[in-house]
Amino acid sequence: MKTKNLIKKAFLSLLALQLLGTTQIMGQTKELTLEDLMPGGSTYRYVDNLYNLQWWGDFCIKPAIDKLTEINPKNGKETILTTVDKINSVLESQKLGKLTSMYFVKLPWKNRTEIVFALHNKQIVFDFKKNKVISTTDFNKDRNNEDINYNSNNIAYTIGNNLYVNNDAVTNEPEGIVCGQSVHRNEFGISKGTFWSPSGKLLAFYRMDETMVGQYPLVDTEAREGKVQMIRYPMAGMTSHKVTIGIYNPDTKQTIYLKAGDPTDRYFTNISWAPDEKSIYFIELNRDQNHSKLCRYNAQTGELEKVLIEETNPKYVEPLYPIAFLPWDSNKFIYQSQRSGFNHLYLYNTDGKLLGQLTKGEWLVQSLLGFNNKTKSVIIEGGVALNKNLYSVNIPSMKCSKALGKTTDGVHNGLLSESGQYIVDRYSSPKIPLKIDILDATTSKSTQIFKAEDPYQEYKMPDISVGTIKAADGVTDLYYRIVKPKDMQPGKKYPAIVYVYGGPHAQMINNSWQNDTRGWDIYMANKGYIVFTLDNRGSENRGFDFESVTFRHLGIEECKDQVKGVEFLKSLPYIDGNRIGVHGWSFGGHMTIGLMLRYPDLFKVGVAGGPVIDWKYYEIMYGERYMDTPQTNPEGYKECNLKNYAGNLKGHLLIIHDDHDDTCVPQHSITFLKACINAGTYPDFFTYPGHKHNVIGKDRVHLYEKITRYFVDYL
Amino acid sequence: MKTKNLIKKAFLSLLALQLLGTTQIMGQTKELTLEDLMPGGSTYRYVDNLYNLQWWGDFCIKPAIDKLTEINPKNGKETILTTVDKINSVLESQKLGKLTSMYFVKLPWKNRTEIVFALHNKQIVFDFKKNKVISTTDFNKDRNNEDINYNSNNIAYTIGNNLYVNNDAVTNEPEGIVCGQSVHRNEFGISKGTFWSPSGKLLAFYRMDETMVGQYPLVDTEAREGKVQMIRYPMAGMTSHKVTIGIYNPDTKQTIYLKAGDPTDRYFTNISWAPDEKSIYFIELNRDQNHSKLCRYNAQTGELEKVLIEETNPKYVEPLYPIAFLPWDSNKFIYQSQRSGFNHLYLYNTDGKLLGQLTKGEWLVQSLLGFNNKTKSVIIEGGVALNKNLYSVNIPSMKCSKALGKTTDGVHNGLLSESGQYIVDRYSSPKIPLKIDILDATTSKSTQIFKAEDPYQEYKMPDISVGTIKAADGVTDLYYRIVKPKDMQPGKKYPAIVYVYGGPHAQMINNSWQNDTRGWDIYMANKGYIVFTLDNRGSENRGFDFESVTFRHLGIEECKDQVKGVEFLKSLPYIDGNRIGVHGWSFGGHMTIGLMLRYPDLFKVGVAGGPVIDWKYYEIMYGERYMDTPQTNPEGYKECNLKNYAGNLKGHLLIIHDDHDDTCVPQHSITFLKACINAGTYPDFFTYPGHKHNVIGKDRVHLYEKITRYFVDYL
Repeated sequence: MKTKNLIKKAFLSLLALQLLGTTQIMGQTKELTLEDLMPGGSTYRYVDNLYNLQWWGDFCIKPAIDKLTEINPKNGKETILTTVDKINSVLESQKLGKLTSMYFVKLPWKNRTEIVFALHNKQIVFDFKKNKVISTTDFNKDRNNEDINYNSNNIAYTIGNNLYVNNDAVTNEPEGIVCGQSVHRNEFGISKGTFWSPSGKLLAFYRMDETMVGQYPLVDTEAREGKVQMIRYPMAGMTSHKVTIGIYNPDTKQTIYLKAGDPTDRYFTNISWAPDEKSIYFIELNRDQNHSKLCRYNAQTGELEKVLIEETNPKYVEPLYPIAFLPWDSNKFIYQSQRSGFNHLYLYNTDGKLLGQLTKGEWLVQSLLGFNNKTKSVIIEGGVALNKNLYSVNIPSMKCSKALGKTTDGVHNGLLSESGQYIVDRYSSPKIPLKIDILDATTSKSTQIFKAEDPYQEYKMPDISVGTIKAADGVTDLYYRIVKPKDMQPGKKYPAIVYVYGGPHAQMINNSWQNDTRGWDIYMANKGYIVFTLDNRGSENRGFDFESVTFRHLGIEECKDQVKGVEFLKSLPYIDGNRIGVHGWSFGGHMTIGLMLRYPDLFKVGVAGGPVIDWKYYEIMYGERYMDTPQTNPEGYKECNLKNYAGNLKGHLLIIHDDHDDTCVPQHSITFLKACINAGTYPDFFTYPGHKHNVIGKDRVHLYEKITRYFVDYL
Repeated sequence: MKTKNLIKKAFLSLLALQLLGTTQIMGQTKELTLEDLMPGGSTYRYVDNLYNLQWWGDFCIKPAIDKLTEINPKNGKETILTTVDKINSVLESQKLGKLTSMYFVKLPWKNRTEIVFALHNKQIVFDFKKNKVISTTDFNKDRNNEDINYNSNNIAYTIGNNLYVNNDAVTNEPEGIVCGQSVHRNEFGISKGTFWSPSGKLLAFYRMDETMVGQYPLVDTEAREGKVQMIRYPMAGMTSHKVTIGIYNPDTKQTIYLKAGDPTDRYFTNISWAPDEKSIYFIELNRDQNHSKLCRYNAQTGELEKVLIEETNPKYVEPLYPIAFLPWDSNKFIYQSQRSGFNHLYLYNTDGKLLGQLTKGEWLVQSLLGFNNKTKSVIIEGGVALNKNLYSVNIPSMKCSKALGKTTDGVHNGLLSESGQYIVDRYSSPKIPLKIDILDATTSKSTQIFKAEDPYQEYKMPDISVGTIKAADGVTDLYYRIVKPKDMQPGKKYPAIVYVYGGPHAQMINNSWQNDTRGWDIYMANKGYIVFTLDNRGSENRGFDFESVTFRHLGIEECKDQVKGVEFLKSLPYIDGNRIGVHGWSFGGHMTIGLMLRYPDLFKVGVAGGPVIDWKYYEIMYGERYMDTPQTNPEGYKECNLKNYAGNLKGHLLIIHDDHDDTCVPQHSITFLKACINAGTYPDFFTYPGHKHNVIGKDRVHLYEKITRYFVDYL
């Protein structure tokens, strides 16, 4: 349910950037509009960035519209490698077309002065030193999920539901069997369906048979006559798809499938190759999601060689990261687990023997960026609660460095150079919109290469602060954020809106810029509303106990914590306790409605977007992890089914559910409306035609204007 | 689009009646609630009635829950024929079950003391004098569209898309070909698909091939997983279905099809049998609907024998009534036409020769009830504007009687006895809820057999009055109805709501009880709103010119007339001209949105239900009659497409469109929302899941509470 739209965001910003290049926007007023504050808005004021920074060996490459610049990581000195004009003069002379920017070129080979880019259905390799085209490869314009291995130059891609490598069809399956794409609905850390061996000589891929999965109809009304689009959507407790793993050899054009047996009700996750490419590893999980096994299969025969690590948990095990082999010792790998209560790194050998716990404590490893061969270290992102930083963990000594990024009350995101010596460190803090440093991963010496201006510096801004209150359990600290109108008048009572998400794998408050306050929160605070957000138990980056307190009854404990937040709000002298609203989307839509119905006297107005109403309509993978099945947990499904509280509705509730929502199908909200009609209560409803789970693009401004009007009318 | 729900209404009322039989409702308050005022409401106060009165020869039969009573038409004297207990004792002794009421028994044979009824999938013939079961016939519980001929006792019915007679399958067609059911989407007066010859020895039936018609998806969200239901919906300008007419002989079990040639883009309407059963007549209409032909086909060979009457009109011809043969002269028949500008009766012979015009003038024949053999008369319902009465037209002299029903400023509905000597006359007038007389069709002598009480007599009621204003053309009189709160305060300004339908084949104002004021109008007037309704040009019972002024631009002239209504309202001293709302459903939904967008400064609030937005999404038969096709009338379709005015929305507009609307598909409203989002305007939206074109049953109370709240919040 977590929106995976970082790439989209970057792209939208890039588009905006290009627009800015041609039209100058003058700040004539200091009042921020929704168009200024919402992604998709025509005057959206995003934080500037360096897009698509990449490493070329140990040189940092900075693309721009017009040129490609190399940054020396030792001192930040910049050298222009080439310009778009220079390249285009060659491309045009060969009638290959014209690059509009350098943002999407890649430099995959550290020792070669060659860039790779796609242009008019061709992949082009270009030597920017010799200024000539090295090679062009045609590709099918319908291809998707491109995965290139730059060692072998083999290209895997999909057309429709089948997988291709170079010009060969690897699979030839009928509709309903999908090859080479992400499976298990992107849960368990899965985001793709092809996995090249290190040399690029073998390709592991997913094959998913979903012919047995129920189909949900979505209706496209923009067609001349409304048209149905059937999506295969596995609902909790119902029949799931079946996944197998194939290995394709482009030289022999042969495919073998791993002999894993009947794939019914099994998840195959986190694929990784052994460095010698003779075997392949993945983590298998049972449908109950309480027993995982790290397995090794022979990549030639497809036979199971060994189950190396097993984990069980009375609630759930959630493998999210593939194992990572030490580059200097192919018999050892790093395995990640939250068995200690927090996600940490464990060193194992290929016999499955635990050699040691590399990181420990009440904080989490959030990402493994790579290794430094020279220092025998693994570089990670880690943190807890509001902060995330970069660390180097020395493997022989099992010692973790101090934070490498210099701003400790902040959020750092790293990109490691090829040798592991340098890190591009993008970071922000409540007062820093964005800075980019290049760090030396050993000495933590930093060189700043970019600093974004505050895009709101000329505008009226609210006051943002963060604090903690106790959860409903009386002991756990919860972080809240409160956004208050500038220049509040003493003695005046202000209405408040709780913005909530509340579900697992997400955190609304952190120490990034403005504590991650959303544009709409700023807008509403400027209009005179207090906007309050609380990361309840169940949310991210606080460890397993904190997250899993919701097990088998999603939404219940979360709502109790949010009520604590409202009690805190009401204790503040400047809050009008009779005018409290709530708004959230997706899990936050579920929370919004749950709060309105379970605590009808607390909230006057709610706006819920794309809500889960009844977990039995939600997907198997996410839903059953937290809720088990409707068959094995009937009480839980009943307790968490908001239709059973439809009669409690007192305040004004607007539900927005888009007609192409293939994450949380419209059935949730439509059946809830029916339940309210039956119960004699009066929700409001709206839909953004053609949109999926989130309203994106320019319509997002309309959406938030709609939501604003609802609060203005009724709160 | 006209709601054909009289039977439904009667049935609902009957159900309510049965409830009243067991629970006594006490009028403890004099304030009417929506539950009191809306059909489907738990305390709905309907006008009492005698249900299912029927003629047994020339005796009038009055069924009740517990007994069957004969009424002597000469003097109104009542004789109990039998009781339910008497019948049930026999039925139960034979283990046939038990009748719960006598409302649905029939007396088809005037000379036999036999009743017919259905019970537990059996048709039972019962002699109420001998008190014994005469026969039982099993029938398939899945059968529909039952059509029994009581001369031959042959039973036609459908199962799924196929036709059966007695126990034999007449057709065996695949999905997409529908036999024995109504065709052409119930336009052209078509309401069924089987037509027994007078003796019941031959059955004419429709066969409709709609495999070539586009399918529209409706989604059932009450299923475990949302399920699509595809409906074949022929949209204006697109491919239409193809209809043929078969004739089945139950004795030989043979079917012939009329040899009418390629059925593409042709309508076959108003089937009737020649008295000798040797030939069959129907009125054919071209797809343009501007050229009709009365045709006779040989019922044995299927060959066309003669085209008897042709009509053309530069706008449209709309045949609505089958021809009717004179019982005393099988060479002559009555043909109905509005060629004079008003629907009238014409006498023809079977050579197609016009023998005379039986009725004339600026009024309409609305129904042909039957004939009186003795006086050589045809009995009709007729009227103009607000009134409808019963008339006897002597055929030899071509003279029309004076009105037979005694209340001339009122609405009469007749049911003719077998000989044509007597008429059951149900009538109401603005002050008479319902009376039932038996009339002598010759002398017009009447005997009252029923008088309903005013169900609101103990309640606070608004003031209802009717008047005329000039249409936008400056000359045509239009009727309006104004419903005003009781005890209005002098000098006070009241908000007003225009309730509008405005489309063809409907009239909102007449001289029936309370001038046909709706329950919601009464409710709103009691709450302090003025409710105003105007029958604009284009509506029913005013003749062809009045109706067809809308040709090729539906909604435009109609809106202009409604604006005249608003100007009139604003001229009234007690109206607050800044607080005018508008509400309508179906064509009235189209009008509501059209008025809000074309006259954005006149209306502050609108509520539109099941609206047509773009006529190209509406069905071929109705749509093309008034609009031609999108190909031949692109300007008209553009002018009338409300999406083209989406940017004009200023006031508050709530659109309600049900997700199972198979009359006006949800695509209309969904694409309108999209147009408003694109245009930056802010309509509201709601849906009643599972409902079709109208919200009926108990949810109708919820609907009108929802609508009421919208006006209360915003007007």
